[in-house]
Amino acid sequence: MGADSLTPGSDLLAEVEASTGLSRLESTCVIGADVGATKIAVGAIDPTGAIIFRQQTASPSQDGARMVSEVIGLLDKSIKSAQSEGLEVAACGIGAAAFVLHAEGLLLSAPNISWRDVPLQRLATETTGLPAFLDNDANAAAAGEHLAGVCIGVDDFVYLTLGTGVGGGIFVDGRLYRGHKGTAAELGHMTIDPHGPLCACGRRGCLEAVASGTALQREAAALIETEKGSLLVELCGGDPAAITGEMVSAAAERGDAAALAAFRSIGYELGLGVVNLIHAFDPEKVVLGGGMSRSGHFLLDEVSRAVSENGLPELTRGVNVVLSGLGADAGIVGGGAIAWEGIGGPS
Amino acid sequence: MGADSLTPGSDLLAEVEASTGLSRLESTCVIGADVGATKIAVGAIDPTGAIIFRQQTASPSQDGARMVSEVIGLLDKSIKSAQSEGLEVAACGIGAAAFVLHAEGLLLSAPNISWRDVPLQRLATETTGLPAFLDNDANAAAAGEHLAGVCIGVDDFVYLTLGTGVGGGIFVDGRLYRGHKGTAAELGHMTIDPHGPLCACGRRGCLEAVASGTALQREAAALIETEKGSLLVELCGGDPAAITGEMVSAAAERGDAAALAAFRSIGYELGLGVVNLIHAFDPEKVVLGGGMSRSGHFLLDEVSRAVSENGLPELTRGVNVVLSGLGADAGIVGGGAIAWEGIGGPS
Repeated sequence: MGADSLTPGSDLLAEVEASTGLSRLESTCVIGADVGATKIAVGAIDPTGAIIFRQQTASPSQDGARMVSEVIGLLDKSIKSAQSEGLEVAACGIGAAAFVLHAEGLLLSAPNISWRDVPLQRLATETTGLPAFLDNDANAAAAGEHLAGVCIGVDDFVYLTLGTGVGGGIFVDGRLYRGHKGTAAELGHMTIDPHGPLCACGRRGCLEAVASGTALQREAAALIETEKGSLLVELCGGDPAAITGEMVSAAAERGDAAALAAFRSIGYELGLGVVNLIHAFDPEKVVLGGGMSRSGHFLLDEVSRAVSENGLPELTRGVNVVLSGLGADAGIVGGGAIAWEGIGGPS
Repeated sequence: MGADSLTPGSDLLAEVEASTGLSRLESTCVIGADVGATKIAVGAIDPTGAIIFRQQTASPSQDGARMVSEVIGLLDKSIKSAQSEGLEVAACGIGAAAFVLHAEGLLLSAPNISWRDVPLQRLATETTGLPAFLDNDANAAAAGEHLAGVCIGVDDFVYLTLGTGVGGGIFVDGRLYRGHKGTAAELGHMTIDPHGPLCACGRRGCLEAVASGTALQREAAALIETEKGSLLVELCGGDPAAITGEMVSAAAERGDAAALAAFRSIGYELGLGVVNLIHAFDPEKVVLGGGMSRSGHFLLDEVSRAVSENGLPELTRGVNVVLSGLGADAGIVGGGAIAWEGIGGPS
């Protein structure tokens, strides 16, 4: 199975019991899975969205068949772990970095994982014997924020996951908005600038091309050409192509001008995307999640400036742009939220 | 009151009676109003969305107080006309070319009409004694397409009204999507090209700036500089600034190269907007309405090309881009649809 870690969080479980007043035997949980191109994380999620335990493994992203068996295997293992802790497992929810037809439980394709047309929901149900549900990872993360993050009680919001790519999730009237086929909210492929940089999807100037971790690296690499004294030169060993998002964050934390300028540039472009989303969806909040949101405080001022300079005041008034409340846990909590939603909610 | 025309459509009413089997006395209708910067049109709308009669007047758009009294006056007059025809009037619905807070019934402001913060819904209710409802004109037109146009039975669609400006309406799960404040679907102010032409809103490259009637005129004016033999030169009397959308349509109908090129250019930009909307909303259909949609057949090929060249196939597959089924009637039928929706539907 290749699971790298198994951390049955007995202390956490005890805390959950104490806070909910439920005994171990009475406790019901779901299993949430966060399936990405780098790792597969699976864990037990309680009705409040708390993670009871988790386990994870590296993604064999070049081997679609092994991806399937790792996901299914980890789900099965997590169910058994939960049951051995005395938990009742009600369902499984999978958030995958892929195009997904939610109603059919079908994974169509993924930009960075070699699988296509995988009936992952049916495979999970058949193997585990439990109801299973599948959604896009950004939809799942949005559901996670609604269950346990910064959008508890917020009915209308837009969620953006900012990582290597950019994904989106939309809540309307307290529910995930999935559209006609189930592929709604591919917000990373909204065009921000048709003359902008090439996107991984082959188009130009998608939000993903101008406001992702990849875009941050590109901006930083360009900026150190003129800012020779930047810390980034040292961090990347003089090779701009070796710059990572982590390096840009580390340099920005230390006040490096080039790193801060890279964040400002990305932040403004991100803000242009946020304006379009506010005009289209009239949300109460816009939530920025994903890996880059860990350094989101470097982005927020420029996002606000772009919204203020480019938004229609009637529409942008009162809309809060905030950082994810779940951070790196959004995916796994989100998988759990998709499971709870599938069986009619935790409450 | 200054109403220019009053055409009680007794023949139409007779047809409605014949088709519905309802007698004149049993018939219930609503009053729909289409309030724009050029004209105010008001009429009686039956439960199927058919217009029983209509009356209209020019908009005193520079005088906000007169706008209010004209709208309210025409509503009142139409109610009396309907009642004198033996119809029972159930409600009034107003679609206005303005930013509107639907739930509050408040008209915030309008780009081309001098009124601000008008509680139009309350004023209409107080004067007429009937339930009244207010929405943005593009939302209303979308509701009209759902009631009686090309979206009967279509639960998820995006509607664009292409006139001097560009407005939007969105249906989700068979209902108008209004967002948190009620200002959702301002799709005309989605940025298509941040380096593009200036928009009336002060920003650059909004969908409205690149794909409206105004943009069509601008493109055509630029093109006749190089296409000296264009019919448009003759039609505009040699003054490019005098070109109207009607002239471009007329020239295109006669195969004029410059006019056709202007439509192609606008069509492609419109297609880029349509791609963003498909990626965000995953609709079953995208409907093009408004004045420019009367010449929409000149746009559709380029819209399709832009979607095919710029859309993600997983998302654009199966989405139909179609022209409005209601044309110039969309506004008034839409007002009626907002009224029917407000009282719980015609059925």
